[in-house]
Amino acid sequence: MKQNIGFIGLGNLGTPIALNLIESGHTLYVYNRTSSKTKPLSEKGANVCESIAGLAKQCTTVFTMVSDDAALKSICEGEGGLLKNLEKDSVHISMSTILPETAAYLSSLHIQHGQYYLASPVFGRPEAATAKKLNYVISGEESIRRQAEPLLKDTGGLNVWDFGDSIVAANTVKLCGNFLIASALEAIGESINLANKSGIDADQMWNIFSQTLFNTPLYHNYSKIILEQKFEPAAFYMKLGLKDMNLVLQQAVTVNQSMPLAKLLQNNMKSIADSGRGNIDWSAVSTADKNK
Amino acid sequence: MKQNIGFIGLGNLGTPIALNLIESGHTLYVYNRTSSKTKPLSEKGANVCESIAGLAKQCTTVFTMVSDDAALKSICEGEGGLLKNLEKDSVHISMSTILPETAAYLSSLHIQHGQYYLASPVFGRPEAATAKKLNYVISGEESIRRQAEPLLKDTGGLNVWDFGDSIVAANTVKLCGNFLIASALEAIGESINLANKSGIDADQMWNIFSQTLFNTPLYHNYSKIILEQKFEPAAFYMKLGLKDMNLVLQQAVTVNQSMPLAKLLQNNMKSIADSGRGNIDWSAVSTADKNK
Repeated sequence: MKQNIGFIGLGNLGTPIALNLIESGHTLYVYNRTSSKTKPLSEKGANVCESIAGLAKQCTTVFTMVSDDAALKSICEGEGGLLKNLEKDSVHISMSTILPETAAYLSSLHIQHGQYYLASPVFGRPEAATAKKLNYVISGEESIRRQAEPLLKDTGGLNVWDFGDSIVAANTVKLCGNFLIASALEAIGESINLANKSGIDADQMWNIFSQTLFNTPLYHNYSKIILEQKFEPAAFYMKLGLKDMNLVLQQAVTVNQSMPLAKLLQNNMKSIADSGRGNIDWSAVSTADKNK
Repeated sequence: MKQNIGFIGLGNLGTPIALNLIESGHTLYVYNRTSSKTKPLSEKGANVCESIAGLAKQCTTVFTMVSDDAALKSICEGEGGLLKNLEKDSVHISMSTILPETAAYLSSLHIQHGQYYLASPVFGRPEAATAKKLNYVISGEESIRRQAEPLLKDTGGLNVWDFGDSIVAANTVKLCGNFLIASALEAIGESINLANKSGIDADQMWNIFSQTLFNTPLYHNYSKIILEQKFEPAAFYMKLGLKDMNLVLQQAVTVNQSMPLAKLLQNNMKSIADSGRGNIDWSAVSTADKNK
């Protein structure tokens, strides 16, 4: 069923996802803090809202795709936020990578307001959104999961992986996934550093690895970027990678689990972000070791 | 051309490789320090030799597949070793994972004796050998590479990847590959530890990851082993993984390259081996963090 849908957060990934919703026939109401970013959407027929409250009054389903926990909370809370301005029974589908605890907190606030919150973090770079090959991991109230699934397909979701009722499940899985990707980046980088310093043809070496042991698009694409040291323009910012490793380690502390590799990644990402390079691609993580 | 071929080192991987040579029609002469391990070969028609010197006198091509640099040196050196007992123009094809420097050292000794040494480390677990799906990385003198290639196919090699003249190249690539696999083990393990402690269904989580981002046999097989914590019987011993990480870091020191992830792996493997569990599978690496 085609509906009025709200979309908040038109960054690198949010924009192609929102465009997919328009292409699927939905009427879209969009809001972005930096209003210039609404332009590609308005050109395709989206209605640009000047406030979150204005958007909330038009829609009973709102997607959000923002950069961190604080941004998501600020969208929900306060006089002008979603909680106070969405109608009862409205659904907030949250695609951001956040702390599982934040999902639980926001879900409980929505419930207090007679609304629903669905945890729906997403795997995929912007080009995967355009190609409609995103992977969503969802968790939350069952009826809302059933209702959201076709909409998530309309956003460009190839698969929607259902983790059941527990509101914290989906974001935990998403954090594990981003940790795994970051681990691969560090490993690829260290192997290339060692090969280069040893006088080995690292291109040829990764040509083999990405045809044999590591034959996936993830390793193909990232080994290429790291071999070429082509970290700009970034598809995923170092500062966002660092944010994710911070969340992984916060979750690890919460459940009392040691994660030394996550800690290493956090340190390397922090050293690069602290040196003013937070806007290069997170695959530059191993350059922190390069000249040590 | 079918020839008399020598094979030294009948461990978990050496045995199926040697059996493939017999199946390919070669006449095999085998030697193993623990002589009982020659039995599966002699049952298939291999000639069991009582000494390395005895073997060397029968063959002008000798494969070796032993556990470490010291074992390989002891096979080559001394009155009873390959160097003193192989005829001129004989070829030693060395499949062990060793330090690149050791390959260069042994190659130069063979040259002094009018013989050839080919660096030919191999990727593949024992079941890959049986399935004839091994991947060899070779480097050394060109005419010897050409001569060895069909023989390596006969051992169960699906691919032979040629790294040219530099005798140190193949072993450096092999060390990078084993480092990458070990890195994946640590990352898989930490993700499963975090999921378990967070009350997430880690089986379901890895079912997704191994169908999407990490869709390779490596991740399928190892995530299963780590989810089940089924580290015995080992396909590749922790103590051998530790040896490989030691070699990686020795190479890193040689070329003045920092590898913090390799260091982490070395520490975790060492703590497990030191606790008397050197014979469990190396995929247990992340259990070092499990209860920290």
